[in-house]
This record gives sequence, C-alpha cells and structure tokens, in this order.
Amino acid sequence: MKCLIIASGEGTRLASKSSLKPLAFLMGIPLIARVILLARKAGLDDFCVVTGYNGKRLRDYLETFSKKRNIKITCLHNDEWKKENGISVLRAADTINDNFILLMSDHIFNKNIIEKLKNRKIHNDEVVLAIDSNIKRNKFVDEEDATKVFVKDEKILDIGKNLKEYNAYDTGIFLCTPAIFRAIEQSSKRGDTSLSGGIKLLAKRGKVKTCDIDGNYWIDVDDAVRLKLAEDYLLNISTKKQSDGFISRYINRPISIPITKLLLRTKIQPNTITLLCFFLSIISVLFFFHKGYINLLIGATLAQFTSILDGCDGEIARLKFLETEFGGWFDAVLDRYADAFLLFGLTYHTFQITGSISIIFIGFLALIGSLINSYTADKYDSLMKSKVHRYFRIGRDLRIFIIFLGGVLNLPILALLAIAIIMNVENMRRVVVLARA
Amino acid sequence: MKCLIIASGEGTRLASKSSLKPLAFLMGIPLIARVILLARKAGLDDFCVVTGYNGKRLRDYLETFSKKRNIKITCLHNDEWKKENGISVLRAADTINDNFILLMSDHIFNKNIIEKLKNRKIHNDEVVLAIDSNIKRNKFVDEEDATKVFVKDEKILDIGKNLKEYNAYDTGIFLCTPAIFRAIEQSSKRGDTSLSGGIKLLAKRGKVKTCDIDGNYWIDVDDAVRLKLAEDYLLNISTKKQSDGFISRYINRPISIPITKLLLRTKIQPNTITLLCFFLSIISVLFFFHKGYINLLIGATLAQFTSILDGCDGEIARLKFLETEFGGWFDAVLDRYADAFLLFGLTYHTFQITGSISIIFIGFLALIGSLINSYTADKYDSLMKSKVHRYFRIGRDLRIFIIFLGGVLNLPILALLAIAIIMNVENMRRVVVLARA
Repeated sequence: MKCLIIASGEGTRLASKSSLKPLAFLMGIPLIARVILLARKAGLDDFCVVTGYNGKRLRDYLETFSKKRNIKITCLHNDEWKKENGISVLRAADTINDNFILLMSDHIFNKNIIEKLKNRKIHNDEVVLAIDSNIKRNKFVDEEDATKVFVKDEKILDIGKNLKEYNAYDTGIFLCTPAIFRAIEQSSKRGDTSLSGGIKLLAKRGKVKTCDIDGNYWIDVDDAVRLKLAEDYLLNISTKKQSDGFISRYINRPISIPITKLLLRTKIQPNTITLLCFFLSIISVLFFFHKGYINLLIGATLAQFTSILDGCDGEIARLKFLETEFGGWFDAVLDRYADAFLLFGLTYHTFQITGSISIIFIGFLALIGSLINSYTADKYDSLMKSKVHRYFRIGRDLRIFIIFLGGVLNLPILALLAIAIIMNVENMRRVVVLARA
Repeated sequence: MKCLIIASGEGTRLASKSSLKPLAFLMGIPLIARVILLARKAGLDDFCVVTGYNGKRLRDYLETFSKKRNIKITCLHNDEWKKENGISVLRAADTINDNFILLMSDHIFNKNIIEKLKNRKIHNDEVVLAIDSNIKRNKFVDEEDATKVFVKDEKILDIGKNLKEYNAYDTGIFLCTPAIFRAIEQSSKRGDTSLSGGIKLLAKRGKVKTCDIDGNYWIDVDDAVRLKLAEDYLLNISTKKQSDGFISRYINRPISIPITKLLLRTKIQPNTITLLCFFLSIISVLFFFHKGYINLLIGATLAQFTSILDGCDGEIARLKFLETEFGGWFDAVLDRYADAFLLFGLTYHTFQITGSISIIFIGFLALIGSLINSYTADKYDSLMKSKVHRYFRIGRDLRIFIIFLGGVLNLPILALLAIAIIMNVENMRRVVVLARA
C-alpha cells in the first residue's frame, strides 16, 4: 500500500529547531524520517512525499535517506505551498490510483494505528480517519490548535479547528481512496483548498468513517512544547525493557538514559557502542589481573560503568530505527564473553591474594552459574512476558553490580561467592518455574 | 474434527505379536495408540474407535490410554466384526453427524497427510481418499494385499484389491461426510458390506475425490514383514537430527539407536534418562577429581558413554510421543551443567598433575568457549536449518569426544587446549556467518 506524506508547510512554530520543520530533529533523526520509518515498521513500503517550502533541501535529504535506508520514496513538489494543504494532497492525484495511507510529516504515532487502518474495509468512495476519542486530559494535544471531529456511529458529522461540540481529535492519519482527490477538487472550486475542506464535503455525504486509535499515542509535533513532550515520551518507551532487572531499572537506566540523549546527537552506531563496551570490559579484566585494591577498584568501577553504557546501544537502536536481529544477538554474545572474562579476572585476582585453590572452585561455579543464567534467560523471559508485565529477574545487571560492590568494598571473595550462589540458585528456580508452567 | 478409527478385525497375520492386532507393539507403543497420537499431532482431538474382535480388552486399554494421554476417545462396539469392515463404519452413523477423518487402526502414516486432508474442501455428498500414486517400487506396500484405485482427474473410477488397471494405492485414510454411511447402507443391501463397497458406489456417482499424499509415508502394518519395515523406518526418522554433528552422526547415533530399541521395551521415561545422564556425568567428574591415568580413563570413557546415552531420551520421546517443550529444554540445561562440570573436573585433574596456573587459564577458556558455543547454537541452527538440509556443526558431541580421546591417550592438557581453541574459534565463525546472513 502506498503512503502519501504531506511535508509542504513552513511550520514556523518549530523554526528555531531547524530552518525546515520536517527536518527538525527528534531523538536523533528528523521528524519526517521518523514518520517514514514508523510507517515502514507498520508494513508500508512505497512512499510519496509532497514538498513545498524549502522543497529542494527536503528532497535532497530524502534522496540520501532513501538510499541509506533502502526505502522507495517519490518526491512531488507543490509550488503553491503557501495555500492550504489540500493542494498538496491533490499533487499526488496522478501518482496514486489505489487506496493509500495519508500522513502528515509532523505527526508521530504508534505504528499500531496504521496497522489497524490498513486492515479496515473501505468502499471506493470513502475515507477512514483515525480519531482519538480521549479528549479529556490528553497531554499531547494542543487543545486550541487541534482539529476536532464530531463522530456518531463511526461516521464523521463535522470536522474543524473551531468546533464547539466534538468528541474526538483528528489524528491526521487517514486511509484514503482516490475519492479524496475528487472531494478536494470540488471543495477547492467552492473556495476551500484545505484537506479538511475535502473531508468535510465527504463527511456531508456520510463517506468519512472513523477508526479509533485505542489509546495508542500520536503527537502533532507543532511547537517546541510538543517536541519536548515527544522527546520525553519516546525516550520513556524506548528505554524500558520488560526483561530489565532491579539494578537495571533503578540504577543503570537512570544513568544510561541521559548518556543515550547525548549520544543521539552524534552519529555513533549501536554496534560501535556494543564493541566499545566489550573492549572496556577487557580493560577491566586487565586491571583485575594485577594485584592490589586500586586495580580491583578501577576494574570493578569500569565494569559497572560498562554495564550501564551497555544499555545505550539498544536504546539508540530503538530510537533511531537501527535495530537488527543480528545486532541484538551480537550484543548478547559479546556480553557473555565480557561476563566470563570479568569473572575469570576477578577469580585470578583473588587467587593471587589468597593462593587458595578453593577460589578457583568458587570462580568456576560463578562462571558456570552466570553463563547458564544467560542460557536459560530466553525461555524464562518468554514465559514471564507472556504472563505478566513486570517480573522477578536476576541477570547480568545484578552480577556486574555485585562485582562492583566487591571491588569497592575490597571483598572480591564474597562477591565471587555471592555470584556463584545467586546465579546457580536462580537457575534451579527457573527450572522449577518452567517445569510448573 | 472427529476421527473414526476402525479396530474391529481379528488381524490374524500379526497374531504372533499380540493376541490383538491393534495392541501389537510398534516401537514401544501399541499400533492403535500410535495411530491416535499421530492424528492428534495433526490436530484431531475427538476420537471414536469401533471395536470388535476381543473388544473388551481393547476398550479397557483405550480407557486407560485416554486418561493417561488426556485424549477424548469414545468406543463403539460392532458385534458383527466377522463381517466386512463397512459394518464397523456404519456403527458410527448415529455418533458422527459432521465431516470426519476415517482411519484404520493398523495404518500408520505421516501426519502431513491428515493435515492436507483436513484442509480439503468437500461437498456434503462426497468423500476424499488419500492415495499414494507411487506404485513402482513402493517398499512399504504388499502389492498383493493392497487396495488399488484407478484415478482420473482427481476422481476415483474404480477401487478394489484385484484391479488389473490401477495407478495408485488406497492408503486407508479418508476425509468423509456422513454420505459415506448412506452409501455403505445401500451397498450392504446389495450384498457388499465392505467399506470399499460403499466407496465403489460413491465412485460410480463421481463422488470420491482423491488427495495425493505427496510421497509422505504410510504403512499398512498387516504382517510381521510390514511391522519390521515400520520399525526400521520409524527408528530411522526419529533418530536423525538435522543439528547432529559429525561425531553424533557417525559414532554416537549408531550406538544409541540399538540402546533406544532396548529401552523402548521398558517403561523408562525420557526425563529419567536425562537425569541419569546428568548423574553419570557427575560420576565422571568425581573420577577426574582423583589423580592417576586410571581415573582419567574411567572418567573420560564414562563421559563418552553418557554422551551417547544422552541421545536416547530424545529418541524415545519422539518414538513414544512423549516430547515436551520443557523436556527438551531441561535436557539442554542439564547438558550445560554436565559440560561445565566435566571441563572443570578435567582442568582440576590436569592442574593436580602439573601444578601450573596456565592450566586454569586454558580450562577457563575451554569452559567459556563451550558454554558460549551452546549459547550461540539456537540462532546458528535456525539459520542453517532454514537454508540447508545438512550443515557443518561443532557442538557437544565433539567436545565430549575430545575429552574421551584426551582421557584414553592420557593427554588431558591437549584435550583442554583443543576444546578451548576449537570452541572459541567456532563461536567467532558463527558470529561471522550470522553477520553475513
């Protein structure tokens, strides 16, 4: 299914962020890139963008973006971009002959909305508008500026910015048939060149159906306030992982999130962070290999810092749509090697101090327990995720934190012993939990 | 969908194996149990079995079986079991009012056949017969005894044991509508009380469609020869794993298969074998903990024997339909602990001899490489399985075999070193393979 995106307006209210609104950065990527990538995630793969104000620059960007991300994007230009946005929609009339999704370049949203719209049945003289019926305390909506709709029996009876009686917001996300073009043409002849004009005309004929977004988010990033809200929201949803353990949730993430925010401004790739974390872990191990509290302290602190930084690759990948199956897996494999080397380093450090072979025993048990803890994690996580939103989880975050504590408090034996016991007991617990499932 | 199974005949030709043919054992479970479990795997869950000869004993068995396996089974009895099998089908006329799958209690088959049949569209006056168009060199079919069919344009023109012109075999697997009951009634009135009689009558009206089994196996286990063929075939398909490595395929399986054949005669459960293997591994480790070649030799030989025996739990589970998701996972987790303890034991054994700390290093690396080898196996296997039938795989079979060789040749250091190098290099290779995929 094609996707038409209107990106012709001047968007003066976000001018301070970028000379061109669709190119204003939101969490590391331009608004329009985010809209396209969200739509692609929802299964759309053929994009048509109507440019206008500063069109050349936007088209240049989209050309590069299209190649880099391997997405089909056709650009159309609307010279009359100073007029209302219906003209921009009309520019695509010759290009699009089938049903399509219509989006605004400055509205971000949950991809579920498009997935739901795509599956809606529609007659060839209709349009379906995604509406948000949450009109009370909707923190993302600028009440004054929003387009309101009055809906009855899943049909739109009226639409406009200044409706007195309304029960939903227009999200700017449509499933259209080419009927929309004819409607805008007719409405333009009557003097209204806006998209809303065309919709109004179809609505009068009872041809505008609605599709509730079921509480999914959508944000019209129209000004700096909305941009900040969008940033906070995206950061919030992209940095929460259901499988985060206690340490991760309350210690690591609160530190990794600000780091992620900083890193988003750079061009650093998630895989680069993954590799960096691995090398930092190796440096920790090298410190462990040397005797003395100071080496232990530095190694352990660096290990904990690395554990925090290790959250950033996933966060950045999610926020910049750079997630790959291989990336996540590669990160996990390197984490296993890092875990193993850290525990081996700590074991060797402690063995040097005590010279006792029992340290080697404990170290082996800590290593075995830790690696099998990761080995059993997939199955445990998938069971728990299918059951509850949050669950008890012991994993990497805790074991690195124990190493950190052991280093700071100069109690490496205790740290090894704690890891050996906790990890192996947790593995047994998982076997019991899964046996009962 | 209901499933009707005809189990009323005397089946004298297999009498030597059991006084009742449906209860003749085939790879650890009675024929009729296998038929029901295969059909359940194909998605059928409501069974109706028509008993006859020695009916009480069969019904008693099915009652126990139904409870043990939690399968709904209704038994109907046909007093006139000495007559032809159409009468047995007719016994279900009052019980079955919808489309159903009709099976013989002594025909085993690939479940794909039922899955294909279930999805066939059928008119309510028709019957679909699964046919095998491989009539040349079909080693499973007793040419003389088989029911032959002459098929044209997916319709059966003639059916019978003594057809001169035929192009397929009747597999005894049907998708029926209640029309079959009326057809057998009519045919019975004309003197033919067989199922084939009813089918013949429907065929004359052009109401018997065919469904090719596409080369899937089916065996009419009618005599001792066919029983042996079925045993060999089932053993063959149940003991081949795509993810088997070289050692597993050419050394371990050829030994584990005869053991499995023996164990199938007992009531031993797959999970019991899993636990037994784990405890045998622990005993190996205890031998490793003691100095001296003889301890090394015994430990290593026991480890290799355990590695072979470890194949039996899966083989028995598949052959007896006792596979569970937890069972496979639990086996894998215990294998990881066994691997880890064996490597630790071997490391300690070698450290006792040399007293060199470098042995501890090598041991740690062997352990890390081995556990991460298992950690990366899932993703590697699923990639390779999607691409090729057989593929290069280094895994547990090889590392235990290296331990065995190291023990026999009294070269434990070399064994540890080999495992450390091979496993870690293999892990890196997997990362490269998956990165390129």
